[in-house]
Amino acid sequence: MVYKNKESMGRVTTHTVSISKARRTMAASLDEIVHNSRAVTDGLKKMYISKIKPLEKKYLFDEFHSPLLSEADFDAKPTVLMIGQYSVGKTSFIEYLLGQKFPGARVGPEPTTDRFMAVMYGDEERIVPGNALAVSPDLPYGGLSMFGTSFLNKFEASQVPCKQLEHMTVIDTPGILSGEKQRISRGYDFVQVAKWFAERADMILLLFDAHKLDISDEFQRVIEVLKGHDDKIRCVLNKSDQIDQQKLMRVYGALMWSMGKVMKTPEVMRVFIGSFWDQPLLFNDNAALFEKERSDLMSELRKLPHNAAIRKVNELVKRVRLAKVHAYLIGHLRDQMPMMIGKDRKQQELIATLPQVFREVQKKYNLPPGDFPS
Amino acid sequence: MVYKNKESMGRVTTHTVSISKARRTMAASLDEIVHNSRAVTDGLKKMYISKIKPLEKKYLFDEFHSPLLSEADFDAKPTVLMIGQYSVGKTSFIEYLLGQKFPGARVGPEPTTDRFMAVMYGDEERIVPGNALAVSPDLPYGGLSMFGTSFLNKFEASQVPCKQLEHMTVIDTPGILSGEKQRISRGYDFVQVAKWFAERADMILLLFDAHKLDISDEFQRVIEVLKGHDDKIRCVLNKSDQIDQQKLMRVYGALMWSMGKVMKTPEVMRVFIGSFWDQPLLFNDNAALFEKERSDLMSELRKLPHNAAIRKVNELVKRVRLAKVHAYLIGHLRDQMPMMIGKDRKQQELIATLPQVFREVQKKYNLPPGDFPS
Repeated sequence: MVYKNKESMGRVTTHTVSISKARRTMAASLDEIVHNSRAVTDGLKKMYISKIKPLEKKYLFDEFHSPLLSEADFDAKPTVLMIGQYSVGKTSFIEYLLGQKFPGARVGPEPTTDRFMAVMYGDEERIVPGNALAVSPDLPYGGLSMFGTSFLNKFEASQVPCKQLEHMTVIDTPGILSGEKQRISRGYDFVQVAKWFAERADMILLLFDAHKLDISDEFQRVIEVLKGHDDKIRCVLNKSDQIDQQKLMRVYGALMWSMGKVMKTPEVMRVFIGSFWDQPLLFNDNAALFEKERSDLMSELRKLPHNAAIRKVNELVKRVRLAKVHAYLIGHLRDQMPMMIGKDRKQQELIATLPQVFREVQKKYNLPPGDFPS
Repeated sequence: MVYKNKESMGRVTTHTVSISKARRTMAASLDEIVHNSRAVTDGLKKMYISKIKPLEKKYLFDEFHSPLLSEADFDAKPTVLMIGQYSVGKTSFIEYLLGQKFPGARVGPEPTTDRFMAVMYGDEERIVPGNALAVSPDLPYGGLSMFGTSFLNKFEASQVPCKQLEHMTVIDTPGILSGEKQRISRGYDFVQVAKWFAERADMILLLFDAHKLDISDEFQRVIEVLKGHDDKIRCVLNKSDQIDQQKLMRVYGALMWSMGKVMKTPEVMRVFIGSFWDQPLLFNDNAALFEKERSDLMSELRKLPHNAAIRKVNELVKRVRLAKVHAYLIGHLRDQMPMMIGKDRKQQELIATLPQVFREVQKKYNLPPGDFPS
């Protein structure tokens, strides 16, 4: 421990001070970004409700693709999904982000968080159970009903009157266990629920513990269902202050080695290295590095409302392209159907020649072939 | 640059002092290891020449598998093969290991080393050209003749009267270039030559440059032919002092990410991080880490003669298993051949039914199926 001198002790204090300072700066510059982002999403919402939704309804888009969007889907705040083995520090990480505790949070070395918990803004502290959340029209959790009561019993929201949560919601998840006990004990499909949240999240934080790095089979399966969302994934190598610099390099290297194998992208995943909780560092070797990493992570979180707005535009454009092709297809098929008799036979015939129908419609309306169902 | 204070300046001096101290310690403790290792290889050599070589000769093992072993193959010193893009610091690294310059070495930012160079012990400094090396009976380079004169013109030995080289030979290689120019300009198959050396090396050091990390296609092909030798490969992230700590983490992570994809092993490759030449560090952020890494690398090199002896035992056992099966097979086939006429027809017949012949011989002499040619 070469650095245990006055200078480094000073740095520990600086560490704690700069956290609260950074939180203040973050909150201030957020306001403008949030204002602009909200204008964008409001515009999208109006456009969807007046122009696109009627079309989707007419051509039964929701029966073929995905449910009609509700106002809550547009109003939903940017979401950060936290995923990691049990006891990696997910709940402590959220408390660190918020600068305060939240109701229902339990922290400990054994698996403590046994439920999905949406940590969100509320005027007063309270817990809202999952079944109530799923039917609440101004929350985007209606879709979770499909995972049944056994899941909804393990889902709740923790509402906190906290400045940070005005612009984002954080999803805490039960720690991933290793082996079969995961599947048996939960009573619902953890991986599929994680996937549902991942599709709707704006950032997915994978947390790893620097002093016991292990990627279980279950974790690997979760990472695999995240594959379409590579651009949203960030890693956090947490508790990095509990080992010395050389060990940290080894652990970090091992993490990159395994993640490189699991993720098929050539782009290297961003890993934030640090110790994300309000405690002084154990080893001070890397204090300067942790400070830089913390600041980088905070600036990514600051960009969240901005990126979320862009993502919503992108998703809606994608949806409109699909809905357009869908409408032309259904319209074309309806035109082919006889008025009175022979409906069944014609239907069979059209289904059998669907690829040819696709080509006809594509040619007739000059649509891009990539937008057709495959 | 937080650490640019008196303490870190002191550490730079310590860095340089500890290098020469470590070199002395290494040389001293080497003597015993080398003594034991030599006893082992001498025993192996006698055994091979008296018992195995006659059998291999009788059953033409060399025509089917690999050339008969010469005394030089046993006497050859442990070999370290250096591989890396051009200008990554391979030649400087060797000078650093030896603690001195060697004849023929050229160092610079452009591709300088344009040949394979065996840096080995000699009573006086001199260069020996490749064609001479290939026919020298006490050197293990006879096999290189198969790459032809165009290669042998680009191969030479640099002999130096240097304590370190009494127990190991280092192979410097031309820097790997990117793109097609590699293959066109060399006039020989770089990848195959690298493979030849890799098979005979006791350690393969892959050098990477921390301030311009790039794994070209050619480099990737080289890494792929090294695949059977994963256990011998070590990486060096060189010039790590030229960037700050956070950048170093990113580069190191990117290296592990790509190597994890290329290498199929779950075991994480050991990467030594540092700046391996006799110059003071540029950034001092990681001085303590570099010192530990340097010391780890040196201790791996110290174990080289020991590991080389074990490897030779292992290789010879492998060869004897092959030679035994080969002898039984050839013996069996010879027994089947008619004395006078119909030789050709019988030969055709035996070749056509080889898998069955294998099974017969395996059963008759109770040999392990894994030792048969596939």
